[in-house]
Amino acid sequence: MGKELTSRTEDYSQWYNDLVIKGALADYSAVRGCMIIKPYGYALWENMRDALDKMFKDTGHVNAYFPLFVPKSLFEAEEKNAEGFAKECAVVTHYRLKSDPDNKGKLIVDPEAKLEEELVVRPTSEAIIWSTYKGWIQSYRDLPLLINQWANVVRWEMRTRLFLRTTEFLWQEGHTAHSTKTEAIEETKKMLDVYADFVENWMALPVIKGVKTPNERFAGAEDTYCIEALMQDGKALQAGTSHFLGQNFAKAFDVKFSDKENKLDYVWATSWGVSTRLIGGLVMAHSDDDGLILPPRIAPLQVVIVPIYKGDEQKAMISEKVKIIIQQLKDLGIRVKYDDSDNSRPGWKFAQYELQGVPVRIAIGARDLENNVVEIARRDTKEKQSTNIDGVSNYVKVLLDEIQSNMFNRAKQFRDERITKTDSWDDFVKLLDEKGGFISAHWDGTSETEEKIKELTKATIRCIPLNNELENGVCIFSGKPSVQRVLFARAY
Amino acid sequence: MGKELTSRTEDYSQWYNDLVIKGALADYSAVRGCMIIKPYGYALWENMRDALDKMFKDTGHVNAYFPLFVPKSLFEAEEKNAEGFAKECAVVTHYRLKSDPDNKGKLIVDPEAKLEEELVVRPTSEAIIWSTYKGWIQSYRDLPLLINQWANVVRWEMRTRLFLRTTEFLWQEGHTAHSTKTEAIEETKKMLDVYADFVENWMALPVIKGVKTPNERFAGAEDTYCIEALMQDGKALQAGTSHFLGQNFAKAFDVKFSDKENKLDYVWATSWGVSTRLIGGLVMAHSDDDGLILPPRIAPLQVVIVPIYKGDEQKAMISEKVKIIIQQLKDLGIRVKYDDSDNSRPGWKFAQYELQGVPVRIAIGARDLENNVVEIARRDTKEKQSTNIDGVSNYVKVLLDEIQSNMFNRAKQFRDERITKTDSWDDFVKLLDEKGGFISAHWDGTSETEEKIKELTKATIRCIPLNNELENGVCIFSGKPSVQRVLFARAY
Repeated sequence: MGKELTSRTEDYSQWYNDLVIKGALADYSAVRGCMIIKPYGYALWENMRDALDKMFKDTGHVNAYFPLFVPKSLFEAEEKNAEGFAKECAVVTHYRLKSDPDNKGKLIVDPEAKLEEELVVRPTSEAIIWSTYKGWIQSYRDLPLLINQWANVVRWEMRTRLFLRTTEFLWQEGHTAHSTKTEAIEETKKMLDVYADFVENWMALPVIKGVKTPNERFAGAEDTYCIEALMQDGKALQAGTSHFLGQNFAKAFDVKFSDKENKLDYVWATSWGVSTRLIGGLVMAHSDDDGLILPPRIAPLQVVIVPIYKGDEQKAMISEKVKIIIQQLKDLGIRVKYDDSDNSRPGWKFAQYELQGVPVRIAIGARDLENNVVEIARRDTKEKQSTNIDGVSNYVKVLLDEIQSNMFNRAKQFRDERITKTDSWDDFVKLLDEKGGFISAHWDGTSETEEKIKELTKATIRCIPLNNELENGVCIFSGKPSVQRVLFARAY
Repeated sequence: MGKELTSRTEDYSQWYNDLVIKGALADYSAVRGCMIIKPYGYALWENMRDALDKMFKDTGHVNAYFPLFVPKSLFEAEEKNAEGFAKECAVVTHYRLKSDPDNKGKLIVDPEAKLEEELVVRPTSEAIIWSTYKGWIQSYRDLPLLINQWANVVRWEMRTRLFLRTTEFLWQEGHTAHSTKTEAIEETKKMLDVYADFVENWMALPVIKGVKTPNERFAGAEDTYCIEALMQDGKALQAGTSHFLGQNFAKAFDVKFSDKENKLDYVWATSWGVSTRLIGGLVMAHSDDDGLILPPRIAPLQVVIVPIYKGDEQKAMISEKVKIIIQQLKDLGIRVKYDDSDNSRPGWKFAQYELQGVPVRIAIGARDLENNVVEIARRDTKEKQSTNIDGVSNYVKVLLDEIQSNMFNRAKQFRDERITKTDSWDDFVKLLDEKGGFISAHWDGTSETEEKIKELTKATIRCIPLNNELENGVCIFSGKPSVQRVLFARAY
């Protein structure tokens, strides 16, 4: 079978890589830190993208496309943002190659084609977009501007992991412009809600909404809102962020508008993004030692039908029945595949589709046909059930919904069991090592303490939950007064 | 109104730019040769992309995503391909910026972050993809591999034009691998047919299918098939290409497969692409002096409804009726907008939607309401017609189809009238200057003659039409024997 997956307990990190590679989601590439998203992984991303895109459009946003390159002078205009990303920028310095005079058939960079101004490959597009918005915004009538972009971005990461942290990744980035601070903050929160809705209801992954501490803020933001999910190894994953940018970029690029009273003011901004990183979270949160488990709503393939037969005659009889079932499933909008290839045995196929996380498998043999039944196996619980062929399409439809909610509930229970309150430092350290998950603890509100805790435990403050309860206490580390608990965790 | 379009006769090239900019399809950017695709233009591209994507999937292709960067050593592996693109490659040489010690708040490229091997920003992805296919293909069972990618590519063009020729552009590139030459050639032709089908039936743009001369071939191809369209200024536009790559890339990257007899052979390849350039062709082929004319099937907005009213009461009455019409149109899958903004007068709105090429405009005033009619104006012919409100949605549905076919027929008639046969060189030169279009003339089959003709007249051989009639004659330029006519034109 060539499957040979590492188990989670054996080596969680290797298990993850095995699933991504052997599950055919992605592959390593010849380019340092960049990966190839394989057809199965890309189909998953397309389903995620389409669902998100619809949610963006339903909330009044439109798509556009801005250049890949940012001239250095624009890039450095918003200083905090530039400082935050400078260390991981791929830089284009030349625009031509030429034949290597010393090495026939080889090429060298043409030194005469050096750019006057270097171009940064976008790590994020605030700079290029706000330099454009300057030309698009004059009056309050031009606002709000609600634009999203689907694009590739590049961040030169030193340690990369498939999907979770790659040098190039695919994402969407929303960049909106508003006439008031209130409206911009509302937008920031609205898009956080959209992300939470998507990740919970499509990816079956429960998230905690919160706000980042100043230390963990996006470079150039006034506030960064986030959704945080929990992986099976007890580590947190930031699944999406929405930034209130204040007037920082408007000031950096001199973007003003005249209001109804003809008064000039700087424009208020937000930006928000999710990326192919979400796929990494999906894999880590749901899968098991036999492979991926994909939520039906975004699974490239929702149902696979495998015939079990001896000889062509049996196969033909089964196939005829299956044809009808497939049509019924398709009529219900279900993504289904019939795998009648002769190259491999049913057992091998079962394992392969389990590895790839197909939510429902239908097996049908000659005797099943006689009894007018099929065997239905669900990937999430591995339960099998025999059911009458006549009602099979509706049975599957209901089952897909049930798998979707079971996956969410299971992940939620796992997550909820791993939010632990503590007021003792020893306990805090022990919890991190032994139980993992989120630790709800008091913090004195200083960056100094936050950094010290990170240094000692590798745990960071994932977020201050939205609508957090105020509660007087003392900081878990410094013993200084605190007004609220925050969520700590080790994170990806 | 601020419209002020240049007319075609005044300055065709300026007319084109005016339409793209004022029609809100795109904007210039701060990055040399790169443009911004604005929301309206991007919505058009999304419709084109979705239609094409469906056609690719219906013909058995799947999408994937490969890295933006190509290491120089991979890039140069297929020598002809590398040579063809070397002169226009953006090259990443560094992966970090740092603070400029001499200039507070500014950044410089960190000389210590120089890459050991430079990375080429993909001008096309054969190299990176075939270096990957090497790992994916072992046996005939792995073939065919039918993969498409939607991506951005960069070619450092010296003279750029919005959509038609930009440094960065969006495109799709199919890269397929086959076990036989015959199958690969079939694939090449099949995808040419898909392109022709799309451009003719969705973009309403008639094309000529043909094959390029060796001079005009894609660098690294054995044969380049193309579709050629005609613009209103009599110049041709290459609208899509499909390449039979032979075993060139398989040899360059050592991609072999074992056939059923366990014999090893190099894999056969194709690649094919269309880009945002198509939007330029769309604008140039169909529009008039009042603005864009978009084919209904891909128009972001198919119908706009403009109320004509005095006072809130009239407006409310009209809006109530419009609400019903909109629902009916939406039920028919028609993309419709109701523009009841008070900011501008109906006449201004009419001009604006004409400029943006919305296929159908519905105007409805208080008196129309009394008579239970609306006024319907079609963008292609500018004809207006009063029609009963009760049947309006079906009327519009039929009208959209009619506009679509009228646009195609009009463009076809224009094109057909501009395919001129000639056997005289003087006539050839005169035709190019005075009539434009395609000139069907004999050619002796040599690159030398082709180049000489280009030098003298700026006309190139656009293609040798598929299923070309063989006909003995003498070359229009050299007088040498020729076996067939080919199509010459000046081109974008």
